[in-house]
Order: sequence, then C-alpha cells, then structure tokens
Amino acid sequence: MSISDLRRRRTRSAAPQAVGGNGLLDRRALLGRGVVFAGAMGTGAVGSLTGAAAEPLRDAPLTDAPWSQEPGATIGPYERPSRFEKDVVRTLSNPSGQPSASVARTPHHLVNGAITPNGLHFVVVYGGVPDIDPGKHRLVVHGLVKRPLVFTLEALTRYPMVTRVTFLECGGNSAQLFSPQPLQANLQVLHGMASCAEWTGVKLSTLLEETGIDPKARWFIAEGADAPHLTRSVPLKKALDDAMIALYQNGERLMPANGYPIRLLLPGYEGNMNVKYLRRIKLVEEPAMSFWESKTYAQILPNGKAYQFYLLQEVKSFITQPSPGLTLKEPGLYEISGIAYSGAGRISKVMVSADGGRSWAEAALQEPVLSKAFARFRMPWRWDGGAAILQSRAWDEAGNVQPTRSEFVAKRGELKAVPPVAAFPNQHFNAITSWAVDSAGAVKHVYA
Amino acid sequence: MSISDLRRRRTRSAAPQAVGGNGLLDRRALLGRGVVFAGAMGTGAVGSLTGAAAEPLRDAPLTDAPWSQEPGATIGPYERPSRFEKDVVRTLSNPSGQPSASVARTPHHLVNGAITPNGLHFVVVYGGVPDIDPGKHRLVVHGLVKRPLVFTLEALTRYPMVTRVTFLECGGNSAQLFSPQPLQANLQVLHGMASCAEWTGVKLSTLLEETGIDPKARWFIAEGADAPHLTRSVPLKKALDDAMIALYQNGERLMPANGYPIRLLLPGYEGNMNVKYLRRIKLVEEPAMSFWESKTYAQILPNGKAYQFYLLQEVKSFITQPSPGLTLKEPGLYEISGIAYSGAGRISKVMVSADGGRSWAEAALQEPVLSKAFARFRMPWRWDGGAAILQSRAWDEAGNVQPTRSEFVAKRGELKAVPPVAAFPNQHFNAITSWAVDSAGAVKHVYA
Repeated sequence: MSISDLRRRRTRSAAPQAVGGNGLLDRRALLGRGVVFAGAMGTGAVGSLTGAAAEPLRDAPLTDAPWSQEPGATIGPYERPSRFEKDVVRTLSNPSGQPSASVARTPHHLVNGAITPNGLHFVVVYGGVPDIDPGKHRLVVHGLVKRPLVFTLEALTRYPMVTRVTFLECGGNSAQLFSPQPLQANLQVLHGMASCAEWTGVKLSTLLEETGIDPKARWFIAEGADAPHLTRSVPLKKALDDAMIALYQNGERLMPANGYPIRLLLPGYEGNMNVKYLRRIKLVEEPAMSFWESKTYAQILPNGKAYQFYLLQEVKSFITQPSPGLTLKEPGLYEISGIAYSGAGRISKVMVSADGGRSWAEAALQEPVLSKAFARFRMPWRWDGGAAILQSRAWDEAGNVQPTRSEFVAKRGELKAVPPVAAFPNQHFNAITSWAVDSAGAVKHVYA
Repeated sequence: MSISDLRRRRTRSAAPQAVGGNGLLDRRALLGRGVVFAGAMGTGAVGSLTGAAAEPLRDAPLTDAPWSQEPGATIGPYERPSRFEKDVVRTLSNPSGQPSASVARTPHHLVNGAITPNGLHFVVVYGGVPDIDPGKHRLVVHGLVKRPLVFTLEALTRYPMVTRVTFLECGGNSAQLFSPQPLQANLQVLHGMASCAEWTGVKLSTLLEETGIDPKARWFIAEGADAPHLTRSVPLKKALDDAMIALYQNGERLMPANGYPIRLLLPGYEGNMNVKYLRRIKLVEEPAMSFWESKTYAQILPNGKAYQFYLLQEVKSFITQPSPGLTLKEPGLYEISGIAYSGAGRISKVMVSADGGRSWAEAALQEPVLSKAFARFRMPWRWDGGAAILQSRAWDEAGNVQPTRSEFVAKRGELKAVPPVAAFPNQHFNAITSWAVDSAGAVKHVYA
C-alpha cells in the first residue's frame, strides 16, 4: 500500500467525528456520546451508521439451547476457564523441559483490561519451576547491615503490607523486532513477555528498618533459591523507595513460576531483576557483576559498549486488537485497543495512527492510570475496507516518548540476519509496532 | 473480658505512637516511618521494639534445600497455585450437585490485596453451571426499544469497551450474623459471598444507543440463559449510568460459574441482579415482579413489609487478618488488615478498634480507593498478650456509615433461633463484625 492509497482512503472516510486519517474517530465516542456502529451481520449496509454490528430481531426472541433446559455442572473449589477458552493459554518455548531457559508468553490478543490473570502471566525461568515448601523457605538479609536477620514466611506476614498494581516485562521482550525484516508472528510471540498484576507484600525498606543499614552500603544483591541461583545487583535507593517482598499476586499467593513463595518486586525495573524464589538480600558497596548482569542482561550497543544496569523498562505501547491473527470480517466500526506502560511512572498520553504515522489522534486512557502499570487505551475506528497501517505511540509523565523504529535502531542496533532472532542485540526493544490491515481484513506485522 | 480489663490493657500499652486503645498504633507506621517490630522467634523479648518478627542470623547464611540443587518442573500453558496452597480454595455448600442452590465462598482470611483471583471468586448458582457455547449464545435487546437487536459474542467485541474494578456481593452474604448468638465460624463462612475483580465489557448504554429507547421505558428485565432463567428487574437509569455487559474478568473471559460468556454487571447493586449467562434485556414500563425479586430477594422486615428492590449493597467492612482460625502465636506487633466497600461509591474512611468499640483509630486505606470496589485497610497493632476485641467500621463518600449490630437489628430484625441460619431474615447484613482475641491468641466471633 502506497502513501497515496492511504491519502485517498483518508479523504473518503471523512466524517464529523473523524480525528485522524483513515477512519480514526473522536475518542469521546467511547464515552457513549453519539457514535453508532456500522458493519453488519446480514445487512450488507457498509457505511451505514446504525445498529449493524448486531442483527435485527426477526423471529421469536429466544429459543432454548441445551444449557437452558437442564441443570449444569457442580462448582469446583478452584475455578478454571470454560473449555471453549482452551486456546487462551500461554505459548511455551520449552514444553518438554529441556535443560535450558523456558519462556511462557501472555496471549495479549485474547485478553483485555489491565490485569493479567494469574494463569496467563508471562514467565521466564532458567532452571524450571522449583517446588518450594514455604514452611522451610527463609529470607536472609545480611551484609552491610547492623543486625543480620532471617525471616520465615510466617514472620513476613506479620509486617505491614502494601498493595500495588505493576507490570513486569522481560528485558528480552520484543526481541524479534530487532530483526531487519518484520517477523510474521502474532502479538503473543512479539510482545508476550510483559504482564501486569496486583501485588501485595512487605516493603523491603520495612525489613531494612529491622536490620539497620551500614552507611557504606550502596547496592544490594538479590539471590534466588532455585537451582540457577539467579543473582542481580540493585541500587540501594530502590530498596528505600518502592521495592517489595511480594507474597500475593492478584490476591492469592504467588504462582509457582512467578516466584512462590516470595519474589523481589522492583516496580518498573527489568523483569529479571525482580528475583524470584528470593532467599537472600545482601547489602554491599559495589554491584556483584554477576553472570546474569554481566552476560545475559548486558546488551552490546553499536558503539561496542555494554548497555548494563539500564534498570528501567522504557515507555512502550502496542495495539492488542486488532493484531495479527484477528481478522476484520467486514468494513465497519471497530475498537482499536491496546496497552501502554513505562517503568518511569504513569502513562500521560497515547496517540494512535491508522495511516502509518501520517496523522495521529489521542486515544482514551482507562482510568485509573497507575504508575508503572498497564494502561489500557482505546480508540474508535471506522475501517472502510481498504489498506491501513495501525500504530500506537506512548508518552509517560517523566516526559519520555516511545521512539520510532528507525530512531531506536540508530541508537540500539539491529540484527544482521534472520534468524536467529535470539542472538544479540535482543534487549529492551520499545519502539513503535505497526500492524498492516489489507483489503481482506487480514492483519500483519510490518515496519512503517 | 470486662471493660475494666480492656481499660487496664489500654493503659499498659500506651506508647508514643499509640492512637487507640489496646495497642492500636499510628497508621503512619505503615508508611515505614519509625515502627519496628516486636514478637520474636526464640528471643522471648515481649515488648521489645527491635528486630524480632525475624530471627537473628547465627550460622552460615544459607544451606541449599532440595529445590536449590536440581532443576524444577516444566511450565504449563495455564498456571495454577502451588500444591502447598491446596487449602486456599472456595468452600462449597453443595459439592455433590444436589438439585438446589450451590454456593462457593471466597477465603478472605487467606488472600490479600483488593482483587479476588478468578479461581476464588464467590459463586451462587441455582441450577449448576451451564456449559455455554459462546458461538451459539445470543443477547437479545427488545421490548420498549425502536429497533430490537440480536448480538452475537463476536458483534459485542466490536463495540467500545470499558474496564472497571468492582465488587460483587450476594444479598445473602453474612446471613449468619442475623443469628441471635454469634455463630462460631471463620470469615469464609461468615462473609465469603463477596469478591472483587476487574471487569471489561460493553456499556449497556452503548447497546441502547443502537436499539433506541421508547420514551415509555422505565425498567429493564434481565434474563439468564441457564435453566433457572433467573429474571430480575433493574431501573433504566442504571442502564444509562454504569451498567455493563461484562465479557472479561481480571483480563480473561468470564469464569464459567460467573456467567460465561457474558453477564450483566451493575456496579454496587445486589449480586443476584448482575444476571449471569445473560441472554435477554427487555425494556418495560414496570418491574417484572419475578419469582426471584418477589420471594428470594424480598426480605420481610420487622414491620411486616417486604424490603424489595433495595438494589444497593450497603457500606460494609470486616477484618480479614487476624480472624477466626488465624491464631496469634505470641505477643508483639501485627498488622490488622481488612476490606471495606460500598455500593454507593468510594470508601472515605475506615476506623478500627481493639477494645470493643471504646476507642477508635483511623486505618490506612490502600490507594487507589476506587468507587464500588474493595478498599484494603491496614492498621498496625501491638498485641500485649491480653484479651482484645477487634472491630472495623467504614464510611462512604455518600455519607453512609456502617451500623453497629444493635442499630442494625433494631431496623432489620434478627433470627429467633439458631439454627437454621438460612431462614429469613437473611439479606443485606452490613453491621460491624467483632473478633475477640483471647490470651492464648485464639480469635473467635463475638457480638460486642
């Protein structure tokens, strides 16, 4: 699709409520003021503005289905999704448990809202999922402290707790977009290593009030109890800010692959630093330069230096609906929806384009917009049946703006060949993602 | 325990940060300013103010447990809690599926935060859980509308969506507290039919823009597709306010027992009105006076009239930790934590007492405090090892205050005998709940 194609479509779709090219409509429509929906089941009224995502009622209003005529199943003690949702699951990189990393990705194209349900939270583990007995687990806080202490789980639950919603994202999420050609894959493959949950636990600063802090301390080292003993260094200022020893995930105790019984939660920081199965916090003067932070999570930049201790996950957004695999069946009105987030604070604005970045309109953000959490954005869109390129771009309250892919690649590099996509550079991709819609309504990943 | 006992204890526990009788401490302590924790593993230092919910570190900091020495399990596509959390489940009133109502209750004493995970959301069903094929399910909107319409699930997903966190509570939650003597049971039994989730769906007002509304319409009737065809009447003004056709619960499609594939969500309204398996919305002039609203959900008041169409779940709170079954092992500092909610809006204040209501102190509310959602409250408490009576009392932004039990019973009545607790009156109990702590640290339900 050429730019002139896009321009033609844009003029065709002009309408009172248009706010951007190629069918973007005033986001106030989302507040229920005056937009009515086109696209029809059986009406064929393309371009109509009344009642046509639904079907006119023609017959007797309701006929009883089998489930309306007989008692249903008994309730179980712990509920699971309907069998009709069996495909709404995480994809697994290593389903047979080979001795290497295992990744489970969130199906963002099939979920909605801001919370990721616990069954679908992304996971990266390097040594499988340990089966930890919480009664035997201990957290040691030592090093440059005045009183080294050991905490049982039971002791931790005695302390004042805090609850917050925050996203977690693997530093390697979206690594596929370093490829010089757009990988044809769905959103789950491309951006599935980010999730968002409500976490409850004890602030690390509360525990450090107990141990006291030696004035020489500048960093702390967090270590996991699973076999790889993942070890990461964290600036002490984060411990005194919002770092948490998390015990609960969306209300229940942490999921096994998300660190049960406890994990370090560093809101906004690179996923890998939020050490799971946390067993040790050691206060030190200098970072440990551990294997993980010196090799795996130390990206080599085009200038040859290591991009190390970058800490924050940068401002980012992507459109979840529509996205590859979700075909638009007919022209008409749709909701463009997606998520935006930043490790630096609240999302302040999300702009959406339907013409590959030629024009932009501001999306509605679902309230409340929380710091370092997923923000759901929405934009009504009238698809006229022609080609379109959908993009989203986010800003955060610290003034950061999501880069274009060309801006990003100039600084951070790209792969020289495809595949392997797992090779470096593969960290902290946060540039704009583009989805092309063709005239058949199919959606594919493009660079634009 | 007598009042003079309580008074003695209160004076004994006086301390700079005391804000209420019998050990209540300044809630700013929860912000990490200056409180340190007593109670010890092996220190025996009752009344000490340093470092003793933890154990001093004496030996080598860590010894490797089995899970630290070998690879763990593989990741699954949909994650479930650890086997060590097998008791964190809903209790079932009808586990063998007898032909009667079935209730599953949330274990509030074992969860934390504000979100109830989908596996643990409370359920009441009258005909079991239907196994609905979403491809065949339809929602009909008809009656006093201009254009009766039929919506498929696919059509619904085309409309603009909204996301909000809201609680649901069965009108019969806490029915046991109508008993003239305090039932000895835990929190799950007493208050387990209330839960809170993030819901995403289409506003009913959006669908009514499609159908148009006949000016004569004043109510709508919502009907479920399961065999009991639950039918409830709702004022039309709620449809034009925040009523939602909910498709997603904490990000994923609704749980089967919570209305899959769609339910009516009426934030703040009695649980039963939030019709599950929704198949019909019919606009009408007068309420249907259906079986459910004329009998089951029409409480008989002491004055002999029916308490019908009461709609809102009234302002309420209860302490979740400590609560019956959670024994305090030793004197020392604890967190008193609980949830508060109101169908009328935001919680504005929660007060906590440790001396049976003689003195009160304001609890910290976890931000953000959302309208018609669970608000988690917290209060630090130094238990001196003596008797205590813990209570919480909530206020909402509309000026409503949670009543004492005696105020409540005077208006709403109580049962004449125990058991059966399931007999009327059993609806909309929202008075203060009291937990007595004895000198052994055991917690029991009392009226105070």
